[in-house]
Amino acid sequence: MSGEAAFIAALRGLATHPAARGLADDCAVLEVRGETLVLTHDMMVEGVHWLPGQDPADVAWKLLATNLSDLASKGAEPLGVLLGYTLAADNAGFAGGLGAALAHFGVPLLGGDTVRNPGPQTLGLTALGRATHLPVPSRSGAQAGDGIWITGPVGGAMLAFEALRAGNTSADTSAYRRPVPRLAEGRALAPLVTAMMDVSDGLLLDATRMAEASGATFALDPSAMPLPVALPPERRRDALSWGDDYELLFTLPAGILPPCPAHRIGTVTPRADAPLLLGGAPPEGPLGYEHC
Amino acid sequence: MSGEAAFIAALRGLATHPAARGLADDCAVLEVRGETLVLTHDMMVEGVHWLPGQDPADVAWKLLATNLSDLASKGAEPLGVLLGYTLAADNAGFAGGLGAALAHFGVPLLGGDTVRNPGPQTLGLTALGRATHLPVPSRSGAQAGDGIWITGPVGGAMLAFEALRAGNTSADTSAYRRPVPRLAEGRALAPLVTAMMDVSDGLLLDATRMAEASGATFALDPSAMPLPVALPPERRRDALSWGDDYELLFTLPAGILPPCPAHRIGTVTPRADAPLLLGGAPPEGPLGYEHC
Repeated sequence: MSGEAAFIAALRGLATHPAARGLADDCAVLEVRGETLVLTHDMMVEGVHWLPGQDPADVAWKLLATNLSDLASKGAEPLGVLLGYTLAADNAGFAGGLGAALAHFGVPLLGGDTVRNPGPQTLGLTALGRATHLPVPSRSGAQAGDGIWITGPVGGAMLAFEALRAGNTSADTSAYRRPVPRLAEGRALAPLVTAMMDVSDGLLLDATRMAEASGATFALDPSAMPLPVALPPERRRDALSWGDDYELLFTLPAGILPPCPAHRIGTVTPRADAPLLLGGAPPEGPLGYEHC
Repeated sequence: MSGEAAFIAALRGLATHPAARGLADDCAVLEVRGETLVLTHDMMVEGVHWLPGQDPADVAWKLLATNLSDLASKGAEPLGVLLGYTLAADNAGFAGGLGAALAHFGVPLLGGDTVRNPGPQTLGLTALGRATHLPVPSRSGAQAGDGIWITGPVGGAMLAFEALRAGNTSADTSAYRRPVPRLAEGRALAPLVTAMMDVSDGLLLDATRMAEASGATFALDPSAMPLPVALPPERRRDALSWGDDYELLFTLPAGILPPCPAHRIGTVTPRADAPLLLGGAPPEGPLGYEHC
């Protein structure tokens, strides 16, 4: 991992423009003559970000949805996407799925590139949006006393992934295959939040990142966590550190209620020794999916 | 190739927004509240777009330069880039080279993503720019009577690639390793040209594409082609169908001279049977590097 960590550190050293937000946020935020653009680029690799053999229409959906989720976390309105595609066995399935997903979210395909790559399929997508509220939410604004909220349950993608991997065709695996970016929620929340991000790598890890960025401690209430009805009790802790749910995690000043369905899961406190407390103590075990 | 061609056709069917320019131009051109954004995303794959074992600093340079060349062909001013990176053996070399290239061109790194991919390294870069002149040049505006021009020689990258592949360490292989996007030339030309593109896939192929897009025939004069001094006479035809030179190909109304160094290589004529004539006849043999 040291080569990887060093590479990310080197890129951060290059990304000195304020629009890059130190490569520590979900998106770049670039002002261009009175307009505020929001940009993100996320990649997906076969066998890493999806199961080999998965329906390529689902892969297309997820590639688009995960990038739009980054825009959602900024309260941004999507303007269009560019696709980076390596050819696979079933390209028609991907194209059809991408078309359906673009139509569903009302986002135009603006451009991109297609290449041959003899290895696992490697996809990239750039999403461009415009801010609907200034300042554009970041991860770093949470204040002691704020409530900590999340737009929906975590753990659904975990259960869906496990069912898909097990070949359980009767299970509803859409939570893993077809995440829904919280675009409307992000826009409604942007004027109110002190900090916001999407939960892609695990709630405990992403909450830790937001707490660190804000110089605060996030005190989470384990009994308040929204969890899928079908979650077995012994998997509650796993659900908190699995990713891929793409709900929005945000903080609101005390007394402010969210304008969309959401669950209050804790309170921001002045920075203590640990950035994250779960039921009063730093959580043991993995916090989430650590990657670059 | 049919799966590939069908995929591209399917994407074109999706890209109905005018900003996408039918995926038939070098860039997307998107108007956002009085600003005209220019966007491109190009990929590079180890063993396809560069030789395995090449200096990763050169790979970083080329990844940036080829995308900036697309902006150059629109006369656009670069605003920033997002990187899609798969980890390799020498990530530090890439980061260092990218930093040097970004500094050279004065372009900020805004964001991106880094993933692991067990196959050949697969890179993507999104470049964002703003138009400096409206309308933004396209490939489709060449008119009968226009002169056909190019900013510099073709064939240099071919010779450099062959020397690099042969392990000829005394040769200057920079034409292949470190192409120079014609950003200043593109900006100077944008207000004057009737059509413009960069030559990435071979002069004859790219000229054919511009002729087809313009509904015209391009009559090229073989004796007027700018070629490297070192080019052996028997390689002249090869030089016209090799790519990777990243010069700008453009058309100017009769009587207009370019404001930068350039070579006149032919004349646009009304559309004849063939879109391209070389010395009065359609060229035989390959026109360039056909890919998606």
